[in-house]
Amino acid sequence: MRIARFSIDGNVAFGAVEGDSPPGTTEGLVLDIIKGIPFADFELSGTKVPLNKVRLLPPVLPNKVIAFGRNYAEHAKELGNEVPDTPFAFFKPSTSVIGPGDEIQYPNFSQELHHEAELAVVIGRMCREVPRERVKDVVFGFTAANDVTARDVQKREKQWARAKGFDTSCPLGPWVETDLTLAQASDLTIQCTVNGTQRQLGRTSDMITSIEDLIVNISEAMTLLPGDVILTGTPEGVGPLNVGDEVAVTIEGIGTLTNKVVKRG
Amino acid sequence: MRIARFSIDGNVAFGAVEGDSPPGTTEGLVLDIIKGIPFADFELSGTKVPLNKVRLLPPVLPNKVIAFGRNYAEHAKELGNEVPDTPFAFFKPSTSVIGPGDEIQYPNFSQELHHEAELAVVIGRMCREVPRERVKDVVFGFTAANDVTARDVQKREKQWARAKGFDTSCPLGPWVETDLTLAQASDLTIQCTVNGTQRQLGRTSDMITSIEDLIVNISEAMTLLPGDVILTGTPEGVGPLNVGDEVAVTIEGIGTLTNKVVKRG
Repeated sequence: MRIARFSIDGNVAFGAVEGDSPPGTTEGLVLDIIKGIPFADFELSGTKVPLNKVRLLPPVLPNKVIAFGRNYAEHAKELGNEVPDTPFAFFKPSTSVIGPGDEIQYPNFSQELHHEAELAVVIGRMCREVPRERVKDVVFGFTAANDVTARDVQKREKQWARAKGFDTSCPLGPWVETDLTLAQASDLTIQCTVNGTQRQLGRTSDMITSIEDLIVNISEAMTLLPGDVILTGTPEGVGPLNVGDEVAVTIEGIGTLTNKVVKRG
Repeated sequence: MRIARFSIDGNVAFGAVEGDSPPGTTEGLVLDIIKGIPFADFELSGTKVPLNKVRLLPPVLPNKVIAFGRNYAEHAKELGNEVPDTPFAFFKPSTSVIGPGDEIQYPNFSQELHHEAELAVVIGRMCREVPRERVKDVVFGFTAANDVTARDVQKREKQWARAKGFDTSCPLGPWVETDLTLAQASDLTIQCTVNGTQRQLGRTSDMITSIEDLIVNISEAMTLLPGDVILTGTPEGVGPLNVGDEVAVTIEGIGTLTNKVVKRG
């Protein structure tokens, strides 16, 4: 099931996305409004609205976004970095999260924004110290993410709170796909285009550390909450974003997350 | 005013702390329960409870905790690090926050926990791109923090989500002191003891980057929300914590934050 979060008549609702549409578009898709909470018991109401008539929101509002760095060898190398021996994680704050169609605001303190297309894992259950074989039970589903990065700031500052945590630096969406198994999610095409030109193209099978092991790694340290999001790293091909650009992250079997870059007002 | 957060009869409340007590104790202190929200309009109810009869909670429940690294030159040097040219920040997640008297759980993935006593700034208003002269308007008050760090993990992992973000790694408290000016907060004694023995002793006047400039720096990138917390760095003298230790952070004019270290169950 594809679960979207949206605003309708001033309220926030979840809905199951039904129908098919041409790649990268939402034409013909319908939302069946969900009664209850997606992370707990819920049912479809049968009340349907065309997806094009609502504003999609970030599919979850995470308490925390945990992102793993340099989890694709070719991406580590393209920036002149070593492939790490051990996974390492950083946070993006909830204030950085935006939804599909929302604007990425080019901040004044950077002159070098980069796109980073990533598979995002959405956590469904409160958990800590998750054994590898139980990871499947704590994963709610998958969505697309853009780990927008102020590359110049990242180079200057030893920890990346500003470079990767500024407002609008974490587009998520367009919805959460809950029907993929971990095995399926671990072998998907991940692509990034800017103004229709392909910039990144990789496969999630090229991750150095698997989705299971990333969740074992981070949950060893901290409690994960329903709605928390894990970003799993970006394949090679990262590059600049400029004001006016339209950046789209497409993940096979999930969908396309599109955002336009504007100057911060 | 000293504003504490506490649980009483199963509810969470805020209260103004009244009275005086011997240093490091809470004997004789009384909470005047607050009607309303401390960050907005509120008044004292006149209903008073002895502080010793309630369980103090973290004085705020932050959306995000932003911590600045190596902001005291002598501390940077004691770990063999260079004094940074520019401030740098990392996040501690809300799941890491505990209150005064709560237990620091020694996690299984580290063999080297360290204490780091810090002055914490509590944000009172939603804000972004705060000019230096307006910082005083967005600060709600000050509390004490312990930026508990898994030093061995920090050395191995390039970004510090696990080393400084594990559960219970962010004790805050005992309350928020709202009557200190920025100038006053910038010249306080900060002390850490373990089992009564002094380990850290510094003055907030030794910060490399001032409180004002830290808030300018981080708010340049991201929106700060009421209750967000800024940790301003630790003075020299950091060192190991062991299971069974009682660690106390005392900041002049604020109070003492005491936590015991236990093995994670």
